[in-house]
Amino acid sequence: MPERTPSPPAPVPDPPPSVPVTLSATLAADEALARRRRAGERVLSMASGEIGLPVLPALRDRLAAAADENAYGSVAGSTALRTAAAGYWQRRGLGIDPGLVVAGPGSKSLLFALLLAIGGDVVVPVPSWVSYAAQARLAGARAVPVPILPGQGGVPDPDRLREAVADARAAGQHPRAVVVTVPDNPTGTVASAATVRRLAEAARELDLVVVSDEIYGDLVYDTSAPAVSPARYAPERTVVTTGLTKNLALGGWRTGVARLPDSERGRALHTRLVAVASQIWSSPPAPVQTAAAYAFGEPPEVVERVAASLRLHGTVVRAVAARFTAVGAELAPTAATCYLYPDFEPLRERLAAAHGVHDGDGLAGLFSERYGVGVLPASAFGEPGRPLRIRAATSHFYGDTAEQRTAALEAARAADPLALPWIRGSVDRIGEVLADLAGAPAPAPTPSPHA
Amino acid sequence: MPERTPSPPAPVPDPPPSVPVTLSATLAADEALARRRRAGERVLSMASGEIGLPVLPALRDRLAAAADENAYGSVAGSTALRTAAAGYWQRRGLGIDPGLVVAGPGSKSLLFALLLAIGGDVVVPVPSWVSYAAQARLAGARAVPVPILPGQGGVPDPDRLREAVADARAAGQHPRAVVVTVPDNPTGTVASAATVRRLAEAARELDLVVVSDEIYGDLVYDTSAPAVSPARYAPERTVVTTGLTKNLALGGWRTGVARLPDSERGRALHTRLVAVASQIWSSPPAPVQTAAAYAFGEPPEVVERVAASLRLHGTVVRAVAARFTAVGAELAPTAATCYLYPDFEPLRERLAAAHGVHDGDGLAGLFSERYGVGVLPASAFGEPGRPLRIRAATSHFYGDTAEQRTAALEAARAADPLALPWIRGSVDRIGEVLADLAGAPAPAPTPSPHA
Repeated sequence: MPERTPSPPAPVPDPPPSVPVTLSATLAADEALARRRRAGERVLSMASGEIGLPVLPALRDRLAAAADENAYGSVAGSTALRTAAAGYWQRRGLGIDPGLVVAGPGSKSLLFALLLAIGGDVVVPVPSWVSYAAQARLAGARAVPVPILPGQGGVPDPDRLREAVADARAAGQHPRAVVVTVPDNPTGTVASAATVRRLAEAARELDLVVVSDEIYGDLVYDTSAPAVSPARYAPERTVVTTGLTKNLALGGWRTGVARLPDSERGRALHTRLVAVASQIWSSPPAPVQTAAAYAFGEPPEVVERVAASLRLHGTVVRAVAARFTAVGAELAPTAATCYLYPDFEPLRERLAAAHGVHDGDGLAGLFSERYGVGVLPASAFGEPGRPLRIRAATSHFYGDTAEQRTAALEAARAADPLALPWIRGSVDRIGEVLADLAGAPAPAPTPSPHA
Repeated sequence: MPERTPSPPAPVPDPPPSVPVTLSATLAADEALARRRRAGERVLSMASGEIGLPVLPALRDRLAAAADENAYGSVAGSTALRTAAAGYWQRRGLGIDPGLVVAGPGSKSLLFALLLAIGGDVVVPVPSWVSYAAQARLAGARAVPVPILPGQGGVPDPDRLREAVADARAAGQHPRAVVVTVPDNPTGTVASAATVRRLAEAARELDLVVVSDEIYGDLVYDTSAPAVSPARYAPERTVVTTGLTKNLALGGWRTGVARLPDSERGRALHTRLVAVASQIWSSPPAPVQTAAAYAFGEPPEVVERVAASLRLHGTVVRAVAARFTAVGAELAPTAATCYLYPDFEPLRERLAAAHGVHDGDGLAGLFSERYGVGVLPASAFGEPGRPLRIRAATSHFYGDTAEQRTAALEAARAADPLALPWIRGSVDRIGEVLADLAGAPAPAPTPSPHA
């Protein structure tokens, strides 16, 4: 074929504004630490909240037995999975028609699809999980930030919500949804029922859909602080999402479920959500759905595993919290999840003088570069004003091997997980780091119960 | 707590324009047929191109053995999977650094994330797969439709591409990418190397990224019509996507891979794609990645299975094509996939007089309601002008049980799949339906080789 002389290039107009898109801060931090560990460095990962525990054998066996399932099935997920998820919610006082449950490849994907299905702008709490605001931008929406009340993480202050939504609407924006996280990431706190109720009332007044991310719902270790869903107070407008990533450590399986409201609005949103899902992911992975259906059915071994995990999380996070407060960091009483969100404001002078650190980003850099400890700065959670604050996760403390992790669970059932040398070592290590960083005397090591 | 008098509702401004979002036509049709089958109706599904074949035992065993993998791993997918996919492309003359491969939960998800990562509007061929235009709308972009050349499905006519992009840019739109499908869904044709080359040259002149959906790359049964990737002619700007959904019937596993260009533009796009992936799906399901890595390595049993599947597809689709042409429907010579895209224009008068059918939507309705045969109208693929055209897929003909489907593959290896009563029955059934619909004499049944 003869070579064609190319025409002169057509003029390309100025590009449209690019969507600002950044790698998930938690996933980026995890990958960076993994590289350093492979390079032989001593590192302590407190960056992501990935739960370092093994797959429950009963679930592993269900997935293995379902390995010959290769059909797409329904976009919204199998009847078995949706029915099991409805039962899971029923046992928590939130009964729902399985026809209003939508399963997806992770609750992250469901949250994104919900933003597309709802449309308009979205109110997010400050601080909040790294991906809400990023997802809003990808969905072509604005994230309207509203601060939490002190110690009431994950729920925008209802009064400030009213102001922010009024201001946004006056400015021509279109907030249609408010995201809440109960229990909360990053603060590890659980908003009170009264606050959740006030948020639900404000959402009704403002005609907002409430998107309640309850992925940490089974991770409340402080029994005096039960997590209450806004679906109790605004059932007609609350979408609840959850999954098996936190309670059963199945992040890598990618499975999540959404519970749509049983109302005219909810059914219309269900139709749109399933349509979005059909265009973005088709259906959740079929073999995983079968194992997930078993898990959401909560047979005794699943209930026992979740309970043992919860004891483990609570024991370790409390021990680590004590290390932070021992050097003078401020910490709201944590009640759930594997997160701590300490404020180093009381140490501002020391950090500036000894380390040249003036904000959370600098503090996270210090943890990482000087000590090999991965944490995330408050700015990753949308915090303005450069607070001297970081989020630290304890969910990687349970061991590097399946054997260690299984032993950690066993210790949580019957003994003291802090007696295991690898867990005690990590807790002591963060204690040493904090003492050095704060110029405090080195702390006594965790006493061994057998010492 | 005392009841609060609710404030009067705040005024809600007019909502922003809603994203039009509709359920994937193929998935919707499949679900509707499955409901009718469960209700006891005799139905013949030719709507979706889901491949009705079993999981290869070696892959089932790999997935089962990986059921204890629960870590997220890298956003872009495991090194093993990315290296295996790079090898798959290497063996097809498209060698690539595994660092430029991104795995996702299905190539559908990757295509959507690519639209977000590229930004701007996107040219799509007419006709083309149901989800390209829908994904563009969800990404906040416009789909710029450009017709194919006759018999050259999946590739916009390069000359009309230049006109359409110039017009779109003059109108203030921002086309930045062009999607091609090689081999093509819905037409079952393979664009010639010359056409692909002209498309690639036009894309370079117009500064467009080429997104080449090559999910049907291993499904070319006409060896005189090899599929050539635009990555050969515009390597600096072509992204290739594929997966295991079609060649190995693993749609329900949700696994896909993208090959980014080894160029400055490609590396920048890789960074953005991984960032989008991190915010939407985190990582592909870990156990599935391990099994997919084995499949992309193409050990002998995988190669043999793909070859047997291809013989099965080719045999059945050619037999069905003969039924369509026998009643006078027009059909470009099909060379690949499991699709037929017949045009019933020669039967227009008959269809109007006997059935009151005037376009593809009416024709699809007739197939479904009168005969229980699921097909999709041309309008589902973006065809304007209401042509009397439908897409029919033969990939559900291989049986309803794993035993039947395994026997179908066995017959494709050693004998004639059309000799199997359930396959012959489906082929004969569509022949009867077409004869009745066209007012033609009933066709002779498929001769059995043992008759």
